[in-house]
Amino acid sequence: MPILNKDMTVCISLAGRPSNIGTRFHNHLYDELGLDYIYKAFSTDDIEGAIRGVRALGIRGCSVSMPFKEAVIPLVDVMEESASAIESVNTIVNDAGTLTASNTDYEAVATLLAEHGLDPRATVAVRGSGGMAKAVVAAFRGAGFDDVTVIARNAGAGAALAARYGYAYTADEPRSGTSVLVNVTPLGMHGADEDALSFGGDRIAAADVVFDVVAFPSDTPLIRRARAEGKRVITGAEVIALQAARQFERYTGVSLTREQVVRASEFSRAV
Amino acid sequence: MPILNKDMTVCISLAGRPSNIGTRFHNHLYDELGLDYIYKAFSTDDIEGAIRGVRALGIRGCSVSMPFKEAVIPLVDVMEESASAIESVNTIVNDAGTLTASNTDYEAVATLLAEHGLDPRATVAVRGSGGMAKAVVAAFRGAGFDDVTVIARNAGAGAALAARYGYAYTADEPRSGTSVLVNVTPLGMHGADEDALSFGGDRIAAADVVFDVVAFPSDTPLIRRARAEGKRVITGAEVIALQAARQFERYTGVSLTREQVVRASEFSRAV
Repeated sequence: MPILNKDMTVCISLAGRPSNIGTRFHNHLYDELGLDYIYKAFSTDDIEGAIRGVRALGIRGCSVSMPFKEAVIPLVDVMEESASAIESVNTIVNDAGTLTASNTDYEAVATLLAEHGLDPRATVAVRGSGGMAKAVVAAFRGAGFDDVTVIARNAGAGAALAARYGYAYTADEPRSGTSVLVNVTPLGMHGADEDALSFGGDRIAAADVVFDVVAFPSDTPLIRRARAEGKRVITGAEVIALQAARQFERYTGVSLTREQVVRASEFSRAV
Repeated sequence: MPILNKDMTVCISLAGRPSNIGTRFHNHLYDELGLDYIYKAFSTDDIEGAIRGVRALGIRGCSVSMPFKEAVIPLVDVMEESASAIESVNTIVNDAGTLTASNTDYEAVATLLAEHGLDPRATVAVRGSGGMAKAVVAAFRGAGFDDVTVIARNAGAGAALAARYGYAYTADEPRSGTSVLVNVTPLGMHGADEDALSFGGDRIAAADVVFDVVAFPSDTPLIRRARAEGKRVITGAEVIALQAARQFERYTGVSLTREQVVRASEFSRAV
């Protein structure tokens, strides 16, 4: 990497607990493509001040993670459909002082549903009701799925999310015979619940596709079990790489090939 | 330089028209010393928002140049003597949310007066009345010089600066026999006045020491003439390197050797 210079374009991320993935993903590609950009993750306890700083310092792009995805909505100038539809922002682009918000998580999930050839007539269960669950459920609706059940312990959030898209809600297990199981909770993530399976063994055995949004690790207990049983899987690593690629393209104007995304993703995770 | 990571400490500069010197100086030393820091110059049209961003993003250090050296005073929490004495800030250090302002230009000039062995009984003429001139005049006062004349076309600013330190003011040339000539105006700087000599040839011939604060280029017409006539010279390159070294030490807690400062300064200017 060349020594930094004053004219480099700066992109950042804002997260309560930043990972190193974004910083490594974007800088790796800047280096590979010879772009005069740098990317750096930040945390903050003043999201309004941070976005004011993005404007004042002319920061080109700002990735937004938990817990700021809704808090930034009143702080931007333009909401693209991908963000306004789910009231959740993960990407801000600064065009000469105008901040435009979008949600590349939504875009990434929609792309993965299409690329993995999921059948819109399938029975789907989505566990979770947070910001990312909104993006996932909206993507299923956008892809034409009708039989989706939202499963959440938080009855208020879960029922509201389901109702918004005309889907069912339950606090229990997926009904038997569910074909697509989707986890959008922290179950299986590094930490307290890293050994937890987000769906029961019988439901996994009966499913055709298992989709786990957890990215650290991306081989969660759920994904490992599904792979062992020969199921088609979609991992959080795919989601995070694809959404980061969409951010990259918005920040730089440069489109990435699939190979570039895969290499940058592998590099970003080899920490 | 290694690929950036999320935990790097960030320092920035804020200037109306940033040069590349600071970005190269600091990053070169971070690299040489293996410090997990990055430094990047920024400009802004919203200094209040930029300082709010420094707080919100936890930026460790912020170098301040024209035209923000006075504007940041109400935006910091603590003013060190080097800055409060001259009401001009060029350095802000962020200690866990507390912003402390100082002026390393003042410190650098004071150090150079001592290192070059200037005699406090000498007759001195300082041309200029801006923020940097404040630092220079205050440093002469701090070093015990009594016979200093401030020369400025702006009579209000020049007379006020002189009066503040008990010095004389004139709009004309230095009186004959002046021993130390100091230029703190843009005369000789790259641009419109780059061929201008800030003092007359007879005054240069009669002087012992010529000190030009202009740093781009540091071999101004004044410095070249003085060197050709065998005078002792102090250049803007020395000031900018020394003040940057003091900033570096405040931001990182690492003291630099003279050799490190010289090498980083040479690197920073080889653009």
